[in-house]
Amino acid sequence: MSLRDLAPDYVRAIAPYQPGKPIGELAREMGLNPDDIVKLASNENPLGIGPKAKAALERGIADLARYPDGNGFDLKAAVARKYNVDTSQVVLGNGSNDILELVSHAFLTPADAAVYSQYSFAVYALATQAVGATRIEVPAVDYGHDLPAMLAAITPNTKVVWIANPNNPTGTLARPGDLVEFLESCPPTVLVVLDEAYTEYLAPEKRPDTLGWLKRFPNVIVVRTFSKAYGLAGLRVGFALASPEVADILNRVRQPFNVNSLAQAAACAALDDTAFLEETRRVNDAGMKQLTDAFVRLGLPFIPGYGNFVTFHCGDAAALNQFLLQRGVIVRPIAGYGMPDSLRVSIGLPQENARFIAALEEALQD
Amino acid sequence: MSLRDLAPDYVRAIAPYQPGKPIGELAREMGLNPDDIVKLASNENPLGIGPKAKAALERGIADLARYPDGNGFDLKAAVARKYNVDTSQVVLGNGSNDILELVSHAFLTPADAAVYSQYSFAVYALATQAVGATRIEVPAVDYGHDLPAMLAAITPNTKVVWIANPNNPTGTLARPGDLVEFLESCPPTVLVVLDEAYTEYLAPEKRPDTLGWLKRFPNVIVVRTFSKAYGLAGLRVGFALASPEVADILNRVRQPFNVNSLAQAAACAALDDTAFLEETRRVNDAGMKQLTDAFVRLGLPFIPGYGNFVTFHCGDAAALNQFLLQRGVIVRPIAGYGMPDSLRVSIGLPQENARFIAALEEALQD
Repeated sequence: MSLRDLAPDYVRAIAPYQPGKPIGELAREMGLNPDDIVKLASNENPLGIGPKAKAALERGIADLARYPDGNGFDLKAAVARKYNVDTSQVVLGNGSNDILELVSHAFLTPADAAVYSQYSFAVYALATQAVGATRIEVPAVDYGHDLPAMLAAITPNTKVVWIANPNNPTGTLARPGDLVEFLESCPPTVLVVLDEAYTEYLAPEKRPDTLGWLKRFPNVIVVRTFSKAYGLAGLRVGFALASPEVADILNRVRQPFNVNSLAQAAACAALDDTAFLEETRRVNDAGMKQLTDAFVRLGLPFIPGYGNFVTFHCGDAAALNQFLLQRGVIVRPIAGYGMPDSLRVSIGLPQENARFIAALEEALQD
Repeated sequence: MSLRDLAPDYVRAIAPYQPGKPIGELAREMGLNPDDIVKLASNENPLGIGPKAKAALERGIADLARYPDGNGFDLKAAVARKYNVDTSQVVLGNGSNDILELVSHAFLTPADAAVYSQYSFAVYALATQAVGATRIEVPAVDYGHDLPAMLAAITPNTKVVWIANPNNPTGTLARPGDLVEFLESCPPTVLVVLDEAYTEYLAPEKRPDTLGWLKRFPNVIVVRTFSKAYGLAGLRVGFALASPEVADILNRVRQPFNVNSLAQAAACAALDDTAFLEETRRVNDAGMKQLTDAFVRLGLPFIPGYGNFVTFHCGDAAALNQFLLQRGVIVRPIAGYGMPDSLRVSIGLPQENARFIAALEEALQD
């Protein structure tokens, strides 16, 4: 007998999440200079971290031999103030990935099921499988969530519905009215996770009123991250906003020191750095135009998206990806999502986008 | 029906881990100046972080909008080199707490059981309960692990034995010969977690050869942390050393970006900062003598310990704790461990220990 067999089937069968290739890894593999590599693979903020967060980090370095505040007093207070909820409704995570796992660990067992959409974020399937729950994947419509079909897919043992809005890796956005209709029809005993990792990239008037929905529907869990627009991916911090009873359960399975001290300090400072968020959105809007203009010019179809990335169709994506890697441009293959003909490119700085476009043109001329 | 009822019984019944009181919290509660507070409650390194780790952090701040290296290439290579194991045997955790949870999530289900000792680290019981597995707590002997009794407590459905060595919160150390005997008699299909969070405080000649044991017994999982002697508690990083097949399973349930970038960078730098580790041990040895001399002088019995803390008996510990808090001295009540007559005090700097001793004397004169 192998020690491996001590783990349940569903754990042994997990195929770990495939992250974007780190710059250091490509540099090692191809013998490239890391400074010559452009990474547009993980929907990171090309502006780096904001000035307020950076200042908070520099202040925080001295005190790191102390454990973090396990209750996250300051950060929870700042989040509660900003979103006008009670601190008992805030759950902090080691990135929003941690929040997704807390939902699984707290509510899903092998007797339960969770519903999610085809082409939606890979961690929904992983987090569902990791606890042995049944995965119910609903075919997408136009690369986005088919909400009526997802509603119809809910079974008596379904405890969770995972919805990414905007969706990753396709960038689609559900219409607010459709989401409200979904919530009105969804059984109140099914938790609906609204993962809004990319919501800060939407123009303010396009953002759905999810906090208002949370007041009407206590089965809603809103998930946010500091890894995208806030530029803190390397530090790991995200949060959930939920009804107090759901938040209480999530906090019971949370590791006591899941969010490190520097992440808490930087997130507090970043939360109100509106100038940095606005600059981030401005750079992202311009980059979105730069990339989609190029796709139009080059005759490559793409999915109109609302995040900080664009998914485009290019035939043999694996070959194109390899070509780009050799030129020091890292984008994201999404064959693992069942899209072997497409690549996802994150929006970078103008010169990074230009590097990508130039390499793409070169590939198409080959 | 309450949404709370969606969670399984064993999740609803979790009483979250009670961390040491943070300095900021006591300052708020008592209206004290944080600078006047001495925290000797969480077995943190009173020297702070080492110079090499600090330099690595300052270099790392610029790059935080990038995701961490999910594979932890550099840190795993450094750990593998230091301990002479293959990188496939290293699993990185968001603190060693994360490693303990990975073991639970990967191997324990409601059909399984785990064995641990009375008075051993609280997270063993919590991590076992969180997945609905059966907790088998074995009475301690002299506040330490009763290894023959733990062996006898192993049932056919036992998958994990948790052993802390030195133990927290009692500081006891198992004899290496007894541990080897335990491993020789333990069924090879039971995973034995040897949690060595405090091993760096032992004189080198006292450290058990757990890495040698791992070679003989592939069911051993050695757990280490950077939160204690390395002084990086606020950053969250620890690791497991295990056989490749066990490590592979643990990595399947690991969150892809569980260890933040700064923690990886600081841990790499700290790992070989032997000067800082030696200074840490020197300060700890002197502080241990300072505290235990005081306990002897004051007639307070204590448990001879091998970590960076001392657990002493004092009658009404809750009242003494309250007295100390009012004087700005935070120690750790351990009534939750079934020791309502004892307190655990971490070893601080000489002047911090003196503050504690002076407050203790004052309390005893009251």
